Amino acid sequence: MPDHLLPLINEALAALPYPQAPKGLYEPIAYGLEGGGKRLRPTLLLLAYNIFGQDPTEALPAALALEIYHNHTLLHDDFMDQAPMRRGRPTVYRKWDANTAILSGDTMLIMAVEQMNRLECQQRHEVMTLFVRTMKEVCEGQQYDMNFERMNDVSMAQYLEMIRLKTAVLPACAAKTGALIGGADEEAAQALYDFAIHLGLAFQIQDDYLDVYGDPKVFGKNIGGDIVCGKKTYLLISALNKAEGQDKERLKGWIEDKALTPDEKIKAVTELYNRLHIAEEAKAAIDQHFALAAQCLDRVGAEPERLQPLRDYAKSLLGRNV
Amino acid sequence: MPDHLLPLINEALAALPYPQAPKGLYEPIAYGLEGGGKRLRPTLLLLAYNIFGQDPTEALPAALALEIYHNHTLLHDDFMDQAPMRRGRPTVYRKWDANTAILSGDTMLIMAVEQMNRLECQQRHEVMTLFVRTMKEVCEGQQYDMNFERMNDVSMAQYLEMIRLKTAVLPACAAKTGALIGGADEEAAQALYDFAIHLGLAFQIQDDYLDVYGDPKVFGKNIGGDIVCGKKTYLLISALNKAEGQDKERLKGWIEDKALTPDEKIKAVTELYNRLHIAEEAKAAIDQHFALAAQCLDRVGAEPERLQPLRDYAKSLLGRNV
Repeated sequence: MPDHLLPLINEALAALPYPQAPKGLYEPIAYGLEGGGKRLRPTLLLLAYNIFGQDPTEALPAALALEIYHNHTLLHDDFMDQAPMRRGRPTVYRKWDANTAILSGDTMLIMAVEQMNRLECQQRHEVMTLFVRTMKEVCEGQQYDMNFERMNDVSMAQYLEMIRLKTAVLPACAAKTGALIGGADEEAAQALYDFAIHLGLAFQIQDDYLDVYGDPKVFGKNIGGDIVCGKKTYLLISALNKAEGQDKERLKGWIEDKALTPDEKIKAVTELYNRLHIAEEAKAAIDQHFALAAQCLDRVGAEPERLQPLRDYAKSLLGRNV
Repeated sequence: MPDHLLPLINEALAALPYPQAPKGLYEPIAYGLEGGGKRLRPTLLLLAYNIFGQDPTEALPAALALEIYHNHTLLHDDFMDQAPMRRGRPTVYRKWDANTAILSGDTMLIMAVEQMNRLECQQRHEVMTLFVRTMKEVCEGQQYDMNFERMNDVSMAQYLEMIRLKTAVLPACAAKTGALIGGADEEAAQALYDFAIHLGLAFQIQDDYLDVYGDPKVFGKNIGGDIVCGKKTYLLISALNKAEGQDKERLKGWIEDKALTPDEKIKAVTELYNRLHIAEEAKAAIDQHFALAAQCLDRVGAEPERLQPLRDYAKSLLGRNV
């Protein structure tokens, strides 16, 4: 675990200068940013930087940009999804109101760009271009995710493209940005981008898996939440693809059935998943993307010991060796 | 009127490349941007550019950035204000829904930054820094405006600072950005920034004035709309400052009275405004900011004929000579 990077990131976030007023605009931003979280994107960025560069503080504005942007998306997504809680605390639109969530969220997006624009290296323009493209892709991913709620025929290809956009491109942007600022050439930086795409996909599929098969004490959320709200996950789409005849009709029925209790829904769907060996399918997909991520690391062309902290971090995220 | 610039701006806006999908994300953006409007900010930017530079297409990405950003604020503000119509058409959150307004609005903010980042001149970083600062200020202005709805003691200084942030800094950013890209030195560019601040303040106070005293055929909105919803305007704050004793209590009462019909409210408040000569006060403030704007133009240090198109444009906006 990159224990030395987390304090660097958290201290820099805590030291962000906020104007004194208007309080109603800046307090929710500080609330969002002090909420903790894994700081996955800035950590990836600095680990990728460290493969090539000597002084991670050089890349810190970019690391802050990605973390602030990520928290902007949480703030707006929580309102769009009407999520009441985040990291054990009320979400901003619940603690304040919808307008606060929108306007403070907008300000966070601007602050993210502000941080990226603070970079003093010659790669600033290239990095900003990648950042802008990535942010648009994240919006596209969120749009697809919302579209999927009203669709009954989401294909696995559509699902994987959605999670690539919604969750994988931002860590990928982080890894490539860190590499570029550190002085990597385009090929090595792109290899790190591709590495983080596969890591992100593996991570999201694992999240879908753990929602059904995880240990609630470790997972930190209630088991079966995705099943209860009929969310299109890797598991549900696999099951819809694999189920035949009566199974398929019953599964479709359970997803939309509002008369079933949550526990009944979870029990029925999980039993079908078990019968169809969906857990094994999800695990195979996680393995596949993990293996592809490892291949990407081989393409970076750096000394093994320089890559080791990134391997260790990937391992800590997914509980396995990359 | 800068008749040759408007087609340049509108054609460039129409030629913006949108991804094919997801439609639900990009259609509302195109809808917002094709809705017309005065294109005030990009026009100011190109007019300021033309004082110094030779080829306005060089500054076009910045002009687009400001127009896209402005339309982003309209999209989000219309939702926050629950405004049903904009430029004679349903607002995005009404035609689609709240989530569309938020996510398409976020994407517009990103597209604005994308355009600014497309600039190929050496001033790109300086201009981006100004743009980022300005966007934060616009958010602060919107926050103050929302705060004022729940306040009964807004001072004139607070009001002027709010409209400076909410409406004047973006035209000012436009003017300075155009000047910088054209090759102006810092002093001349700042003089154009200050010019547009005063122009923006004059324009907003005139908007407040026309809400009560305008010709509905020319104004394009219903007369008295601000009075009906108790909006803190230049006129209302002037009147609250100037009224004494019973007048002041009655005015406060009218603002909050939900039993009065809109017409009764408009009649009562307008009669008090007339008795207190609030129209004259507003006109004097408009004159004052117009005179200050003219002084700023003198500080630019350019040949009179190079400044003339900007003077003509200011005149066309406010119906008077600057």
